[in-house]
Formats: sequence, C-alpha cells, structure tokens
Amino acid sequence: MDAKQESSGEIYSADRSLEYIFHPNSIAVVGVSAGNSFFNAGLRYIQILAWAGFKGSLFGINPQGSEVPGFKIYTNVKEIPEDVDYVISAIPVKFTPELMRDCVVKGVKVIQFFTSGFGEIEDVRGKQIEEEILGIAHGSSLRIIGPNCLGLYCSETGLSFSPEFPQRSGDFAFMGQSGGNSVHCVTEAANREIYFSKVISFGNAIDLNESDFLYYLANDPKTKVIGVYLEGVKDGKSFAGVLREATLKKPVIVLKSGSTDAGIRAAASHTSAIAGSNAIWQSMLNQVNAIQVSSIGELVDVASIFLQVPPIAGRRTLVVGLGGGASVVAADDCTRAGLIVPSLPSKSRLELENICGSEIGGSFRNPIDLYRVDLLQQVVEKAYSKNEFDILLAHMPFELYGLVTDDLKDVVVKMFCQSLINLRGSEYSPHVVVLHGYSTAKARQRAMEAHAMLCEAGFAVFETVERAARAINKVIQYYRQP
Amino acid sequence: MDAKQESSGEIYSADRSLEYIFHPNSIAVVGVSAGNSFFNAGLRYIQILAWAGFKGSLFGINPQGSEVPGFKIYTNVKEIPEDVDYVISAIPVKFTPELMRDCVVKGVKVIQFFTSGFGEIEDVRGKQIEEEILGIAHGSSLRIIGPNCLGLYCSETGLSFSPEFPQRSGDFAFMGQSGGNSVHCVTEAANREIYFSKVISFGNAIDLNESDFLYYLANDPKTKVIGVYLEGVKDGKSFAGVLREATLKKPVIVLKSGSTDAGIRAAASHTSAIAGSNAIWQSMLNQVNAIQVSSIGELVDVASIFLQVPPIAGRRTLVVGLGGGASVVAADDCTRAGLIVPSLPSKSRLELENICGSEIGGSFRNPIDLYRVDLLQQVVEKAYSKNEFDILLAHMPFELYGLVTDDLKDVVVKMFCQSLINLRGSEYSPHVVVLHGYSTAKARQRAMEAHAMLCEAGFAVFETVERAARAINKVIQYYRQP
Repeated sequence: MDAKQESSGEIYSADRSLEYIFHPNSIAVVGVSAGNSFFNAGLRYIQILAWAGFKGSLFGINPQGSEVPGFKIYTNVKEIPEDVDYVISAIPVKFTPELMRDCVVKGVKVIQFFTSGFGEIEDVRGKQIEEEILGIAHGSSLRIIGPNCLGLYCSETGLSFSPEFPQRSGDFAFMGQSGGNSVHCVTEAANREIYFSKVISFGNAIDLNESDFLYYLANDPKTKVIGVYLEGVKDGKSFAGVLREATLKKPVIVLKSGSTDAGIRAAASHTSAIAGSNAIWQSMLNQVNAIQVSSIGELVDVASIFLQVPPIAGRRTLVVGLGGGASVVAADDCTRAGLIVPSLPSKSRLELENICGSEIGGSFRNPIDLYRVDLLQQVVEKAYSKNEFDILLAHMPFELYGLVTDDLKDVVVKMFCQSLINLRGSEYSPHVVVLHGYSTAKARQRAMEAHAMLCEAGFAVFETVERAARAINKVIQYYRQP
Repeated sequence: MDAKQESSGEIYSADRSLEYIFHPNSIAVVGVSAGNSFFNAGLRYIQILAWAGFKGSLFGINPQGSEVPGFKIYTNVKEIPEDVDYVISAIPVKFTPELMRDCVVKGVKVIQFFTSGFGEIEDVRGKQIEEEILGIAHGSSLRIIGPNCLGLYCSETGLSFSPEFPQRSGDFAFMGQSGGNSVHCVTEAANREIYFSKVISFGNAIDLNESDFLYYLANDPKTKVIGVYLEGVKDGKSFAGVLREATLKKPVIVLKSGSTDAGIRAAASHTSAIAGSNAIWQSMLNQVNAIQVSSIGELVDVASIFLQVPPIAGRRTLVVGLGGGASVVAADDCTRAGLIVPSLPSKSRLELENICGSEIGGSFRNPIDLYRVDLLQQVVEKAYSKNEFDILLAHMPFELYGLVTDDLKDVVVKMFCQSLINLRGSEYSPHVVVLHGYSTAKARQRAMEAHAMLCEAGFAVFETVERAARAINKVIQYYRQP
C-alpha cells in the first residue's frame, strides 16, 4: 500500500516479495458452518483446502461455533491457540471491520476476502467500508487480497479454490481480477496438459494489487509464462513499468476487458475498476511487448505455443492435413493471421505424388491435402525441411468424409494421432495440431479422445486453424520485438 | 452448358429448373463391389441411399458383376431393364468416357461423378478428360454434377451421401464445392436442430455450375436460407447476377475461400477453381447484399439467427448471464461486433436490486450479472422491454464458480435452461443463448446436455458471445440493406 502510494510512475523497485503468501503455515477460514444453505462458501473453502492437500493447520471460524466434521471450529480468530498466517473471509461485508481488527491483534499476515459488496456496488457504503478496512490494516503487517475474489491456487502448497483444479504444478501463472475467468483459465489450460505455478484471483485489489502480483510473478523462478486478466488498474504508470520489466524476463499475455463503453460500465460494477481508454491500453501493451488477447481461450492458446512449442524463428508454414475444402480454408486462415504458406518445391511435390499416387484426389502443393493417412509420417518426413519452413501445422477435420463408415473413421483418427506421436521428438514433429470440425456426438467423442492422446504426448492442440495461426503469429511477434 | 456459354453477364434467365435432379425414379451406382478395400465408395453410396430411404429403383454396376447382398448388380448401365434417371460414378477416371457414352445411349438424365482426377490435378490429362466427357454430353440431355464431388442430399426423396445425415427435412439449403465442407455444414447445423431442404456438393462444376444451383435454390419454395461454399466460379458476371436476384428473395450466406495466395493455390488443386481477386469478391458480395463469412461454423451461426430467431429490428442488446468477468468480456464482445449494450434505466435497476438483493455480488446495469439463477425468469421479465431493447442475449459460462459442488452446478444449469424454456414463446424469450467456457469433461457433458435441451426448445445456441454477436450483426446488416 505504501509502495503504491509512493510510486511515481517509475519502475517498481520496492522490495515486495510475496513468496510468503503462497507458503502459509496455518489458515483460518472465517464463515464456516455445517449449514445446508444454497451456497456455503466458507465450508467449501475449508473442504477444498483439505482436499488440495494443504499441509499446515486448518481452522474454521464461526461466531456461533458450528460443528463441522473433520474440522476444528472456533468462534473467533483470536481464540486459535496457534499462530495464523492466512485468513479467508467468507462472511457478510458488515462484519469485516471487526474481523480485520481481530486479525491485526492476532498477527495474521494476509487476509483474502471472498466477501463482496465493497467498492463494486453502487451504494456509497461499499467504498466507505473498503476505506475502513484499509485503515485498520494501515500500520500493521496485515495485507489484503481482494475483496470480491477467490484468492490463491498453488498446488505445490495445497492452496486452492476449486475441487476441479489439478493437484499438479506447472510453469504457467495466471492473475485475474475475475474469479470466474481464473477458474476458466485453469480448467481450459489443464484440459491441454498445461499446469500452473500460481494463480491469483484478486478482485477489487484495494491493497495488494496488479503491480504487486505481476512483479512477484515476473521474478518467480517457477513461472515461465504469465497470463493476466485485468479490468482496470490502480496506478497505470506503475503497472506499465512493472509490465515492461516483466516482458523482458518472460512472456506476459494480457486480456484487458472493459475496452468498450459497455465493458467499462460492467467492469466498474464488477470489481470497481476504472477501465481506462482502450486506445491508451492498446498502445501501452504494444509498447511494452505484452501480448494482447480478447478471450480466455485465446490467452491459453498463446500460452500453449510458448509452453509446448520450441521457439519459432519465422512464419513459413507447412500445412498437412485431410480434406480439400478444409485445406483451402486452412491456407486462408494461416495467411490472414499473418503466417506464410509457401508453395512446396516441385521436386518435393513429385516425390509426394510418387509416394501417394495422384488418382484419388489430394494435393501436394502446400497445404498438403492427404487422403492416405497411412502415409502421413512418410509424407511429413519428405515434405518438411527446416531450410524451407519454420512451422509444421497438422490438422484433422472430423466431419470430413461423407461416405466413410464409423469403423474406418476410428482407424483414420488413430492412424493420424499415432503418426504424429511417432514424429514427436524428431525434427519432423509438428509444432501444432488442429482437431476441428466436429459436431455430432460421435465425432466429438472421437475428437476428445484424440485431443487427450495428443496433449498427453506434449503437442499444442487447437480447435480451429484460425486460432492456432493467430496464436503462433502473436508468439512470433513477441520473440521478434526487442 | 449452353445457357452458360450464352450468358452475357446479365441476369440468368434461362429456364433451368433442376427440380428433376432431386426426384429421380431410379439410380444406378457405378463401381459397386463387395470387396473389402480400405475405402469402397461405390458400395457406401448404394448402402447410404438404401439407408436414407430412397424409394425408387436402386441398381449397382460392376463390369465384373460382383455380388452384393441386398442389391441387384449389373455389368453395364445399358443392361438395366428399366429407365435410369440418375447415375453415380465411383470408378477410376480413365473409365469415365465409356460410362458417359453408355449413359447417353441409356437416356440417363444426370450423372454425378464422385470420381476425381480431372481438372484439379496438375497433369494436363485431367483437363483433357473433362473436355472429353463434356463433349460426349453435348447435344444430349445428360447433365453432369461434379466431377470430384459427393453429390446430392435431399432427405425428402432419400438422396444422401452420409449415414450421419438426418432423415428429416428443413428449410436451409447448402451448396458447396467441397464435399467435406458440405458434410461439416450439415452435421454442424443438425447439431443445432437446423435441417435441410437440399444440399449440393458440386466439386469441379464442369457442366451444372454454381449459378445453376443457386438459381434453383433461390426459386425453391422449400428453401428459406441458402449457404454457399465457393472456391471459384466459372462465370463471375452470371454468378453475380444470380446472386443479386437470390438475395432479394432470401438470405444467401457465402464462404468464399481461396481469398489469399496460398488459398488460391489450394483451391486450384482442389477443384481446379480460379479463385479470383479477394477484393473484387468482397466488393461484389457487399454490393449484392450477400452475407460473407470466413468459416463453416460462422456460416451456420448466421443461418441459425435467420432460421431460429424472429427478424431483429435494431442493435440494442440486453445481456443477461452469470459471472462478473464473463459479463465484462461479453459486453466488450457485443460492442466490438457492432451491437449496442445500453445501460439499464435506473428504475429497472432498483427493481432488480429489490428482487435479488445486492450483497452477494451481481450487477444490474447491463450486462446483468446474476448470481441468483433461480430469479432469472423474474429478472428478465422486469428488465427486458421492447421499447428499450431489440435483442435479448442470455449466457451461461460453465467454468464459472470455483467453490461450487458438482451437484449445485447441475442444479444451476438446469435452472438456467428451464427458466429460458419457460420464457420461450413469450415476449421475453431470449433471441440467442450462449453456452460457453467449458473445458473439463464434466463441464463439457453438462454443456452438451444444456445445448441439446435448448436447441430442442428452438433456441439459437452459440459457443461464444463473440460468435453470437457477430452473427446477429451480420443478420441485421442484411435486413437493413435494400
């Protein structure tokens, strides 16, 4: 808070390691009851922490002293006979000042407010209570995460806020003003075998804010790529400075919402954010070489290229897949996204025709439209050369064939996946794989199985050629900028 | 063929009803064997026609006279003791001239060539054989569909080329140069409860071409909306004229591929199409009020608005859904796509706060971010007014809640769907529903169930707010142009 107030728009230099917030020895969840209410957040927090394997002491607080099997419940944080490092508040806003005072007395280091109804509501009382709890923290060592947020996920230390989060760590980090978008990012990434060092859902950010968290993640050796969902910032100049330093160390992918009038209004009522001018944001993000995206899906797309694909030196793309029409559209999609799809040299083309025969359709110019999936591996090894191409994109449209039986479709899909897996690790390993064009339940099932198999093998897998191509192009832009 | 050659760029006026091609009394499939080859197209065609319920006579042709249980196989089309209206060729290209001569002698009306290896291959022999078979047809009444295509789907008369196509008719028609894209369009649409009057996969279009088919569909009383996938046209001026007439009668949604250098090259080797300048295409499509899209998914998106949503008069959109972050991004997505998301009048806002309470989050400005799904119906009835809004968009992000149990998620999703279904038919019925942000297997399953339930109730259902908003905006543009 102090560092924030002192900031002068220069690069953030205060010593503000937040390592300790991810390593509490004890956590108290305030607002835990055994009640069967429609949505019992306190109970869920403590259950999820236990399930996620938090190894320190775990306490519940309920002024009425509810009994919850498996957990020790106190009526006040001050009653807990041990030190408490971390408090999660799931109580109504009106009780929060008292809780803050108790936490200061108890020597709590961090309090995270799931509680909402602060600055984001229209009633002026929301802002007033924010100021009141900030005032209570001031001068103490108690720091605030939120309010109006889901908090921290760090699999390594058993911090979590969803039972669906993987109990497995990785090198992607995400910080978001929206809890829902944070959950969406984690599940979307995990579905592609991308895991997290840390996730921070930070809501209204009245104390610890976007600059603090980004500074920490930029310097976190366990984080290789950072994703950010922002609605607004507390101090734009500070944030720009921290972001500039961060992008020099690792890629930072930013979804800045509230970029239209309606979005700005929505942001204000969601996290009390002042979204700011979209033009200024875009220009700032470009200047500091942050990668701008417009959805959580695209954010994970870009992260996937950074984390699952070796650095890409250029834009020359070889497209190999099935389907004539799908290949034409794929060529357009790649080119429109900024990639180059050069014609295959005629020598290679003739070699491919010799391998495949030309009578049953197919094209060997690039895109290569390959009816003979059994020859995929051989074709890729013949066609792909690092002198001529920088990127190898393989794609499989699932509703391709009219006439084909289900049995044969199964065979074709398995052959496609197995050929790519055989190429994995070689210089002919595709950079990205696109599994697209499925809508029937059967095709979807087939696609999901192929998706799981290829992600497990380490491939970056996409749902459309357009999304893959756009993500690749953004990654190339990042690498190319100083 | 003649009409095409005589065309002078004026509006297509020849009498060229193609009604008869969709109503053959008898079909002969050439190249039917009982063999267990990897891909036996002839056998598949005849099986699919039987399965699709074709009611006329069905014959197989195989020079070696193969025996196929359930079908009568002749060694030559001329041997068939009945008239043959329609022939499907699944034989190698070198045998096609002889087949053409036999068909002329037999008095066949239409021949569709699944066979490829014609003008689309690099070998000059491909073009030569195209000219040869055209020459054989010339002067006779035999017309050609294709070559290098999958042919016709018309559920009403039992014509089909995929066992996955619905045995049910609707009022959407599709014509495409790519068989794979035609299959993709049908399955994608059927997955949203959109069905077809006719589908035409027409490949190289050496005789009956895009202008013939479009003219027919424009005048087909069973077709309300037309989707077109094109790589190139035989006669641009004719096509522009037919298209102009067509768009005055019904919406025509066009995916023109081969719009980049690489796409043009791919189109040439796929259907021998001369793709033409992208700038000229775009300007022509705009001029004639055709709706341009860039993927099959988007084509079905737009069709879905035309077919499943009443005409939309303006752009003022009320967005109701779950999730703070998802709402902010939704507001941006709508605005960026050209829609307007006006603030809800303060009177309505206060009413909504009275209904919902303001303490547990949520926003009532527009987007309405509604935590209390149980109040959805009540909130929509209070907030939506035709004086203030033209469009009602409801959305449900599936990875929204971190803390919520699976049981509760099931309840929330069912409540969301049921509330919308209760509103269906009333003036508060949402125009479009977006089910988005699912990636885990469980969330996907839940989303697919909700999707099926809402599509069955007649809603236009989308995968992202961005896609819904873009489709809505394109439909409004169509309605607004003269």
